[in-house]
Amino acid sequence: MEFNKVTPEIIEQLKVIAPGRAFSGEEINEDYAHDEMRFYGQQLPDAVVEVTSAEEVSAIVKLANEKNIPIIPRGAGTGLAGGAVAKMGGIVISTVRMNHIKSYDLGNLTVTVEPGVLLNDLAQDAEKQGLLYPPDPGEKFATLGGNVSTNAGGMRAVKYGCTRDYVRAMEVVLPTGEIVTFGLKVPKTSSGYSFVQLMCGSEGTLGIITELTLKLIPKPQETVSLIIPFEDLETAISCVPHFFLNKLQPQALEFMGRDIVEMSEKYLEKENFPKVVDGVEAGAYLLVTYDGSNRDQLDEICEQTGEVVFENGALDVFVADTPDKIRDAWAARSQFLEAIQAATDELDECDVVVPRDKIAEYFNWALTLQDKYHMAIRGFGHAGDGNLHIYACKEGDMSLEEFAGKTDQIMDEMYAKAIEMGGEISGEHGIGHSKVKFLEKAAGETKMNLMRGIKQVFDPNNILNPGKVCERCD
Amino acid sequence: MEFNKVTPEIIEQLKVIAPGRAFSGEEINEDYAHDEMRFYGQQLPDAVVEVTSAEEVSAIVKLANEKNIPIIPRGAGTGLAGGAVAKMGGIVISTVRMNHIKSYDLGNLTVTVEPGVLLNDLAQDAEKQGLLYPPDPGEKFATLGGNVSTNAGGMRAVKYGCTRDYVRAMEVVLPTGEIVTFGLKVPKTSSGYSFVQLMCGSEGTLGIITELTLKLIPKPQETVSLIIPFEDLETAISCVPHFFLNKLQPQALEFMGRDIVEMSEKYLEKENFPKVVDGVEAGAYLLVTYDGSNRDQLDEICEQTGEVVFENGALDVFVADTPDKIRDAWAARSQFLEAIQAATDELDECDVVVPRDKIAEYFNWALTLQDKYHMAIRGFGHAGDGNLHIYACKEGDMSLEEFAGKTDQIMDEMYAKAIEMGGEISGEHGIGHSKVKFLEKAAGETKMNLMRGIKQVFDPNNILNPGKVCERCD
Repeated sequence: MEFNKVTPEIIEQLKVIAPGRAFSGEEINEDYAHDEMRFYGQQLPDAVVEVTSAEEVSAIVKLANEKNIPIIPRGAGTGLAGGAVAKMGGIVISTVRMNHIKSYDLGNLTVTVEPGVLLNDLAQDAEKQGLLYPPDPGEKFATLGGNVSTNAGGMRAVKYGCTRDYVRAMEVVLPTGEIVTFGLKVPKTSSGYSFVQLMCGSEGTLGIITELTLKLIPKPQETVSLIIPFEDLETAISCVPHFFLNKLQPQALEFMGRDIVEMSEKYLEKENFPKVVDGVEAGAYLLVTYDGSNRDQLDEICEQTGEVVFENGALDVFVADTPDKIRDAWAARSQFLEAIQAATDELDECDVVVPRDKIAEYFNWALTLQDKYHMAIRGFGHAGDGNLHIYACKEGDMSLEEFAGKTDQIMDEMYAKAIEMGGEISGEHGIGHSKVKFLEKAAGETKMNLMRGIKQVFDPNNILNPGKVCERCD
Repeated sequence: MEFNKVTPEIIEQLKVIAPGRAFSGEEINEDYAHDEMRFYGQQLPDAVVEVTSAEEVSAIVKLANEKNIPIIPRGAGTGLAGGAVAKMGGIVISTVRMNHIKSYDLGNLTVTVEPGVLLNDLAQDAEKQGLLYPPDPGEKFATLGGNVSTNAGGMRAVKYGCTRDYVRAMEVVLPTGEIVTFGLKVPKTSSGYSFVQLMCGSEGTLGIITELTLKLIPKPQETVSLIIPFEDLETAISCVPHFFLNKLQPQALEFMGRDIVEMSEKYLEKENFPKVVDGVEAGAYLLVTYDGSNRDQLDEICEQTGEVVFENGALDVFVADTPDKIRDAWAARSQFLEAIQAATDELDECDVVVPRDKIAEYFNWALTLQDKYHMAIRGFGHAGDGNLHIYACKEGDMSLEEFAGKTDQIMDEMYAKAIEMGGEISGEHGIGHSKVKFLEKAAGETKMNLMRGIKQVFDPNNILNPGKVCERCD
């Protein structure tokens, strides 16, 4: 892949297209060099444009297409796979200023937003309308455009599905600069191949999203959370399938080892999880949330859950049934990544998915790599949907070079094991540039070539986020 | 598009691949000439193979690819858009014998089936496990492979979404004969472009599905149905958005005019719908189902619904709260198409979708075409998701030629109006060969070319169901 340089003339043109919002050279904020995973590269783009409309995006893309310059769409930069890094130079199109919730359509239960609206802002705003936007990724300050581009999953995927299940329609700028709409407001359509679904998870390689119409649901009237301690992680995770075997439908179902809970509570300076139950040390926990239409219904579900988990090794069940208690119960969980980051100076991550009943086996196996590679490995996960986040952490005086070498082998082993167990490379963080080589191994030549073929159909000059998802940038 | 003829040698090879299950010439059952909409063509294929495995499909496809012969995958032939008609000759691959429910995975709440399993068979079998397969298309004797290929919607789409929302993984034979798997059992994945989603609704043009892994949910413990009469159709349909504005979540929400209810009840020889309420003639109805976890919850919802509908013009609310009563309430609805078919010797259909709040306006406009074209037009629809089924019916001594000419103009007007209102060509029946020209007008050149490009990536020799979805067969 050969691209042209962004010349001073092109910078001038960008400044005409987006006056006061086009930056180059030293004007570019250092944040634009990386996403949340600094380890995946430090490359400042040649230019950044903070766009405010589809028309601006169209003008920039047309120019880039004509001049053969990469375009990298970027939301809040909270990605974890290097998807928004300008690995091959070029122009970053930042959607941070396209952050308006445009309109609700309460008769159709949809909301139309600009792609730079933050998940947290939509979540809070929808709640004011008595509505819920079900996807609930851990990172609340990601943009919705970014969520759609990685098909972000989150805590509630076990009951409500992932971001793609809530995208009804979108406005997209194609690499030609043409502005098109895909999908429509209503839930049903069978009118040719689904462009909406193809765009979800395509990480900016096929088109640039400039507007989204998302599905909402009535907000469940009541919720309750349960903290359930177990003696060890294996018992905790082995209990998970019993929720489904007993037809319980948790909104969220997370597992966590005691070590990570303690790390997070120390980071938060607040303790909520019981550590000793009737003289037995708790080694792991399940954290569960249910929603429902009334308190009686939830009481009944909690009782049923008690029966199920006590039969399967739970030490106790702690009920959080007020908004404050629920917030406290989830406080530690929501700071896991931050706590891990605070305790290490560099980390690498995998977010594999495996079938629910393989989680314990997989996670225990992953922990054995600690001894093999003399490296700290920490993790937690969405037990309800088989998605694990596992981190290899650089500690002590290990050099960055040694860390990079080891973590490459660790990731290679982890992905191979996940595939062997019937899993996939990424549950919700996407492929970016950092996982392309692992996806290649997992998907194989046929599927990679189909992806590359689709990419070629949309973007024959390969200017949209080159070197990501299905193409190498090295 | 130029294809080769199926020679006697090829027939011999097919008979070796599938002994006793490969048919040609007069051995071919006349049913294979058409789908449920006979008006869309009567073309016997050159050969039919009733396959029993992915390996057989692979061998046939390889042969066809080599010899440049069309392959037309076919389930139960209940389609309504001509998708399974061998418009250009070739080999029909019938999945009728691949009708085994292979296994349930109760820990992951999934079921793995062969593509020829009938919707009805899975629905009943899942119920025995205490589980629900939420998609509920009107035609219960369609195959699941066909449902996936058209992204069939059905009655429960308003709450639970369409078939695509329940497809986790599939085994597919590509046009090269290679057997691949797409997706996996768990709900989360962000590992490149979604092939599973691309296959859903692609009507056999990209690959042939030989196995499906579908998501199930715990069966709701209680359901209740309501028949709600109104003075006229406009009042009935105008009431629909108020369900959502009031955060009610029906599982199904259908509208129907009195004329079609009477036709259907006459056909069934059984009357269930009230015709006169307190001296007022009922001109239209909403038929609603709710599900929930207990009777109290549903009683509360019924009461709320009563308040909402009485404020919006309902004449009364009739509650069906036992399995027998619910079945009776839905009996007329489930026979609409059969009743319309019985009353006419030929019909043409559109299943447009429009935003929920445009349904009344659209349907009333469609009825004005009766006078304009002197043709009977009947319809009903899924009020909850904006999907209408409207039929132009040949009556009296109208010639087939005159009917074809008129209905072409009627469909043209209907689709143009739907698009103008922000709708799409097909809600759930698909494009087949009969609606390609309307999709072309609606989607425009850019989107049609993207579809054709994707088709070309998967099927460069264009042997899979040619002349369907994005390509003309004329």
